[in-house]
Amino acid sequence: MKKIKINAGGLLEKIRETKPLVHHLTNWVTIYDCANILKMIGASPVMAHAKEEVRDMAQIASSLVLNIGTLTVDFVEAMKLAAESANKKGIPVVLDVCGAGATRLRDDKAFELLNETRIDIIKGNASEVARIAGEKVQTKGVDAAAVKKDLIQLAKKLAEERNCTVVITGKEDIVADEDKYYLVKNGDVMMTHVVGTGCMATSMIGAFAAVEKDLSLAAASALVCYEIAAELAAKKAKGPAKFKELLFDHLYNLNKEVIDKGQEVYQ
Amino acid sequence: MKKIKINAGGLLEKIRETKPLVHHLTNWVTIYDCANILKMIGASPVMAHAKEEVRDMAQIASSLVLNIGTLTVDFVEAMKLAAESANKKGIPVVLDVCGAGATRLRDDKAFELLNETRIDIIKGNASEVARIAGEKVQTKGVDAAAVKKDLIQLAKKLAEERNCTVVITGKEDIVADEDKYYLVKNGDVMMTHVVGTGCMATSMIGAFAAVEKDLSLAAASALVCYEIAAELAAKKAKGPAKFKELLFDHLYNLNKEVIDKGQEVYQ
Amino acid sequence: MKKIKINAGGLLEKIRETKPLVHHLTNWVTIYDCANILKMIGASPVMAHAKEEVRDMAQIASSLVLNIGTLTVDFVEAMKLAAESANKKGIPVVLDVCGAGATRLRDDKAFELLNETRIDIIKGNASEVARIAGEKVQTKGVDAAAVKKDLIQLAKKLAEERNCTVVITGKEDIVADEDKYYLVKNGDVMMTHVVGTGCMATSMIGAFAAVEKDLSLAAASALVCYEIAAELAAKKAKGPAKFKELLFDHLYNLNKEVIDKGQEVYQ
Repeated sequence: MKKIKINAGGLLEKIRETKPLVHHLTNWVTIYDCANILKMIGASPVMAHAKEEVRDMAQIASSLVLNIGTLTVDFVEAMKLAAESANKKGIPVVLDVCGAGATRLRDDKAFELLNETRIDIIKGNASEVARIAGEKVQTKGVDAAAVKKDLIQLAKKLAEERNCTVVITGKEDIVADEDKYYLVKNGDVMMTHVVGTGCMATSMIGAFAAVEKDLSLAAASALVCYEIAAELAAKKAKGPAKFKELLFDHLYNLNKEVIDKGQEVYQ
Repeated sequence: MKKIKINAGGLLEKIRETKPLVHHLTNWVTIYDCANILKMIGASPVMAHAKEEVRDMAQIASSLVLNIGTLTVDFVEAMKLAAESANKKGIPVVLDVCGAGATRLRDDKAFELLNETRIDIIKGNASEVARIAGEKVQTKGVDAAAVKKDLIQLAKKLAEERNCTVVITGKEDIVADEDKYYLVKNGDVMMTHVVGTGCMATSMIGAFAAVEKDLSLAAASALVCYEIAAELAAKKAKGPAKFKELLFDHLYNLNKEVIDKGQEVYQ
Repeated sequence: MKKIKINAGGLLEKIRETKPLVHHLTNWVTIYDCANILKMIGASPVMAHAKEEVRDMAQIASSLVLNIGTLTVDFVEAMKLAAESANKKGIPVVLDVCGAGATRLRDDKAFELLNETRIDIIKGNASEVARIAGEKVQTKGVDAAAVKKDLIQLAKKLAEERNCTVVITGKEDIVADEDKYYLVKNGDVMMTHVVGTGCMATSMIGAFAAVEKDLSLAAASALVCYEIAAELAAKKAKGPAKFKELLFDHLYNLNKEVIDKGQEVYQ
């Protein structure tokens, strides 16, 4: 494995220029932060879940983000309609399998979404993605449980099976598709002490996927930018709340030079 | 057009004294901030949307705020019940036509609310309000799109047609009714970099409408106080997250003297 | 009444070690803060409300927190399923009777939950709990109204009737069961200027109840830790928003020594 350079900063600039509309059907816990993190990078978030409008909203969007963190059966039905509309338009669909492995409902609905619609990027923590890959792991609510398997292999296999990009976030993030993978080693442990950092990462990926067709490159770039901002924030924060404020503000002020210099991407 | 003085500070003091209960049926993205911004000025926010209780809650409230940001068909039905109850009691009803112009559902439901209940204040950004006034504009999700028409004329005409106050927020805010209009030039561009500043403005208007019968004066006063706090916050903030914290705290600490001196109101 | 010492710091350490999963069915206004406050103390919050999964989630949890702040009829049905599952497993169930006394629906549903499931801790402000104890008080939305009765007697009586722990938060917090009561005099008036401090207190109680079988001691310990952090935060904050940030960070950094020294508990 060797260190490589990706043009994450260039993609961030493209987002700021084109202000892509990122349509979300997400959870009620972190919905504000998911919207606000995208404002920081100049994207245009919209949250809309009524089954009567999700198709229309997806048609004016540049990408679609689904997150099953506080799913209900009806909500997932709206997700399917939105995803079908996004598929028809040809915009990327990101699915955060939040809490997969914690309950039967989450597993069933995640698989329904994967089987009935085209999902372009599957994203979760180690135990969530392992569950989607068929492993018998028990996620602890929405927090990751230990997974013993080789995660890079697991991500690659799932990416092949589902013909998509797979993202496993953690101390080191794995981004894999059929052809290649990235390892992103940016970030800070402080991210684990704030609710919503995983959901926000998914929204970031949604924004980058709106401006870059190579979806694995888009996902790795999103994580690089987000986690470099997190590193800068962690340096000055005495606790998670201050850290969160600084994360947003560093992301808002982030420039290409800092990203080029700070990125820790391996292949 | 000439600069005038309004007693926005006096109304703020009245809110702090009387602590009006402001009943909300609002969106799930900014619901916390809408409640919290009212706490900053001493009002008493309550969020309640069950169709079995919205009538009762409106009966003990001093104003009602509706916001269709994350509408569903059922949610709008609850809004109608709440508005009917508010109409019966004679308390002002504010409608934020959040996202009007983005999808058919939003337009249809905004018009249903306007046609089936008495709305006292219509509030939105330029493209949202233009759509409600019958223009063919496409709102970008929940963000404003460019509108070529003379916005003051558009606001006045809609105010006449609907016999209400119309508020268009933007770089300069327009508040119009049949008889008069205000132009509020306070505020800071930083407000556009945080999710929810529009929704919070609506809640502020709801609180001021609870203590002042001239609803256009109430709306202009709410915007003056809110946006002077924003100006003070923007001076010291390096990013949107710090800005938001300071916006809340400056609003909490705002006094009549600062408001009298800082207001930029034209007529 | 005399000052006593409780081992609140020891329980906090136990939470940090065991990271209990606290299942919430809570309101949409403060849902993020309820989750995040638990992250600050190392607990593992999960929010899940689908009727198809609440029983499963309660089965992997260590306590259950219910909050009727933005109730609907369906949502309360899901609460009942979750509570039945929690009862079966033998984990403690905390009910925040948020807004009881404001509308008929809130009263009816609070009583349904109390009558149809086993609630281990009832928590609210003075007027909310008084209403649940059968007094005819009118809560102002979700804010407390004045209650003339002796609150300690009222709490004790309700605790006896319902065979549970009763918590009344306010300037002084009362925690009572059949055998004993605690008076917690920590806290700061700044807590009343931020939305959600009451809801977060309930979540804190849920986490402490997950690690301590004496539920009154657990509740008093939770309030002690939370309110000492609030005192530290208030010392340095010029407004409620900064206060809230510091509250989270002080809670994150709180240690046994500070808790032992700062606690103001009477019996």
